[in-house]
Amino acid sequence: MKKLSQEELKSALFEMGENALVASRLLATAPSALKNECIEMTAKVIEQDKDHIISENQKDIDAAIKNGLSKAMIDRLRLDETRVEDMVRGLRQIVSLEDPVGEILSSTVRPNGLEIRKISVPIGVIAIIYESRPNVTIDSAALCLKAGNAVILRGGSEAINSNLALVHCITKACQEAVLDRNAVQLIPWTDREAVSVMLKMNQYIDLVIPRGGENLIRKVVAESAIPVIKHYKGVCHIYIDKNCNFKMALNLIENAKCQRPGTCNAAEHLLIHNEIADKIAPKIAERLLPRGVELRGDNIFCGLVKEAKPVTDNEWYEEYNDLILSSRVVPDLDSAIAHINKYGSRHSDCVVTNDKQTAEQFMAQVDSAVVYHNASTRFTDGFEFGMGAEIGISTDKIHARGPMGLKELTSYKYLVYGSGQERK
Amino acid sequence: MKKLSQEELKSALFEMGENALVASRLLATAPSALKNECIEMTAKVIEQDKDHIISENQKDIDAAIKNGLSKAMIDRLRLDETRVEDMVRGLRQIVSLEDPVGEILSSTVRPNGLEIRKISVPIGVIAIIYESRPNVTIDSAALCLKAGNAVILRGGSEAINSNLALVHCITKACQEAVLDRNAVQLIPWTDREAVSVMLKMNQYIDLVIPRGGENLIRKVVAESAIPVIKHYKGVCHIYIDKNCNFKMALNLIENAKCQRPGTCNAAEHLLIHNEIADKIAPKIAERLLPRGVELRGDNIFCGLVKEAKPVTDNEWYEEYNDLILSSRVVPDLDSAIAHINKYGSRHSDCVVTNDKQTAEQFMAQVDSAVVYHNASTRFTDGFEFGMGAEIGISTDKIHARGPMGLKELTSYKYLVYGSGQERK
Repeated sequence: MKKLSQEELKSALFEMGENALVASRLLATAPSALKNECIEMTAKVIEQDKDHIISENQKDIDAAIKNGLSKAMIDRLRLDETRVEDMVRGLRQIVSLEDPVGEILSSTVRPNGLEIRKISVPIGVIAIIYESRPNVTIDSAALCLKAGNAVILRGGSEAINSNLALVHCITKACQEAVLDRNAVQLIPWTDREAVSVMLKMNQYIDLVIPRGGENLIRKVVAESAIPVIKHYKGVCHIYIDKNCNFKMALNLIENAKCQRPGTCNAAEHLLIHNEIADKIAPKIAERLLPRGVELRGDNIFCGLVKEAKPVTDNEWYEEYNDLILSSRVVPDLDSAIAHINKYGSRHSDCVVTNDKQTAEQFMAQVDSAVVYHNASTRFTDGFEFGMGAEIGISTDKIHARGPMGLKELTSYKYLVYGSGQERK
Repeated sequence: MKKLSQEELKSALFEMGENALVASRLLATAPSALKNECIEMTAKVIEQDKDHIISENQKDIDAAIKNGLSKAMIDRLRLDETRVEDMVRGLRQIVSLEDPVGEILSSTVRPNGLEIRKISVPIGVIAIIYESRPNVTIDSAALCLKAGNAVILRGGSEAINSNLALVHCITKACQEAVLDRNAVQLIPWTDREAVSVMLKMNQYIDLVIPRGGENLIRKVVAESAIPVIKHYKGVCHIYIDKNCNFKMALNLIENAKCQRPGTCNAAEHLLIHNEIADKIAPKIAERLLPRGVELRGDNIFCGLVKEAKPVTDNEWYEEYNDLILSSRVVPDLDSAIAHINKYGSRHSDCVVTNDKQTAEQFMAQVDSAVVYHNASTRFTDGFEFGMGAEIGISTDKIHARGPMGLKELTSYKYLVYGSGQERK
């Protein structure tokens, strides 16, 4: 894409904003069948264009190799037959979900006869800012569309050829389904300046959802004049109470740490009640060391497990995204809760206990999106919660908290039916 | 208050933020009775301290006169016996409202046996930024408290003595009720810099609600790294369809314009279907001119009403907040909807029609918080909607839209009850 002057860039982005706003107004009242047709059509076009998509993706892969990107980055970037098929399957799952728009959320008749109906409506225009994985292009666009929103996508520069090819499929599908082609737009200019301009366009854009690493998200929050829903990171804890089933505790620790350590809902830190620390610590080591988990801990834990390395104080804030687990021995429930509220990221935290009162206090006082009693933190996920596909997990408290599915991509409005009522 | 260096100011504000966060954690699980006791106690302390409050307010009034503030500003600033009594009555109304915290919003049991409960919880720490009216101090603090939130208040410099006296009453009440005294804090430094620092404190503050003029609100939105819920202005419309009851139309126009023209839900602009323009325009003039309304309009309207002055194109964006009404003659419903979506402020808009299909199209396509069929726009209000006192009216689509009462001052969290479930 040709480099534009700042003025040209601004005017091009404003035009995209205006187009998205117009599209959003049409989408707001589009019937479910039409939105589904468009998503189903996207799946078909992607199947047809598969070879082209994969060859465009190869350009990105070649550039990534040339630019010395990490193996992990290149893996995230890659689209092969299986991943394209996964995208198509994901689209069909979204088709099968219920339309979240038009639900009557409440309805009251006031003493003066006014009938006030609160109904769910699309949010309007949503901007998604994301990094390397090109499948985000398809699944976030489809989720936004299904909820009746127009979308402006801004992917990473390293995936630009893949993203252009994918958005081309959506545009083609919109045209086939006779939906405004501006329902989904990709910003083709990959310089940072484009994001800065977009983040001030609150006359067009209602919501920004950044998906990616903590640095990206912090930049977006710092610059945006548009509401942002996000999570910075997932620093999830398991607290093992003195009164608990050891077998269950060990199973949950193993599952939350090892089942997929790179996810945001994997456990990073373990808090252990000191009355059981000497008994359970060796069992934790016995269970996790063979799984390749590096153990770290405070002084007490390191005294109990010789393989454990000492942890630094700042490390309690850390999301390892890896097979590393830090353990801290705490004197009581209050200290565990205080630790989580201080160092955690308000994502997902679990208490393992047989004591109902301990569980209730933990669940009431831990200030996180999802609080578990005797279950793995790995369940924080749209599908696991029965919402279907999610566009992200929010650790904010405004609008959406926890898994953010179709319902969280809607707003509401009030329809008031009168017969000439005037205010006294 | 002594002027602080930038470093001192920052550190003082961070301390307030940390204190608010601690208070919010205690408030989150405070029983309704305790929160109500604190609000009731505030009412009592204000009654006792009435004379002191009024004499502190007099200092602000004297300074305002000295500084040449407008009569309207001085009136907004003034606290007399009646206004203090109104505040006290407002507090008791808030006590009588239902506690919005702890409601089970949904509950499901997943196939694996996990029980997922979604419950309402406080948002956390809320900052309120407002201008001259000191009663905002009391009513926003009480609403936030009732919903279990800690509050940081930042009022206008012109009301600082009044605000300090009022917050002193709340602090005294918190101590009497044995609630953390930092549940409600007022920023005593009235320089602009304090607001700028606060708006970046997203590690402590979950939500900012600005209340005041459009300029204040635009500044807050531009600077804030914390989510903001607001309305810039209320540019409300009435569309008079060709098929309507003239008597009802005239009553609604008069009510929406004249009943309290300075409010955000008063009508500013009238759209008239051209088939009835020549019949209804003279009646509108006949009804509104004696009420002192200045009529403005497009060429057609001015041709029909000789007293009307021509309107400029930019004026359609304007909130008059005064006895002025601009009228435009439109060829059809689509044009009316397009006008409102272009020039309106997404606040409250009304269609007057006998035709059900016209009403439904208008209500579906007008992108505003509240859309009325045959009722005055003046009903957009927490009490009129049956929510009780409101902290503001949102024209945003994220989190809260329309009147924002206690429920909108809450978030939610998920409590997940398991029996050892692991993710496969």
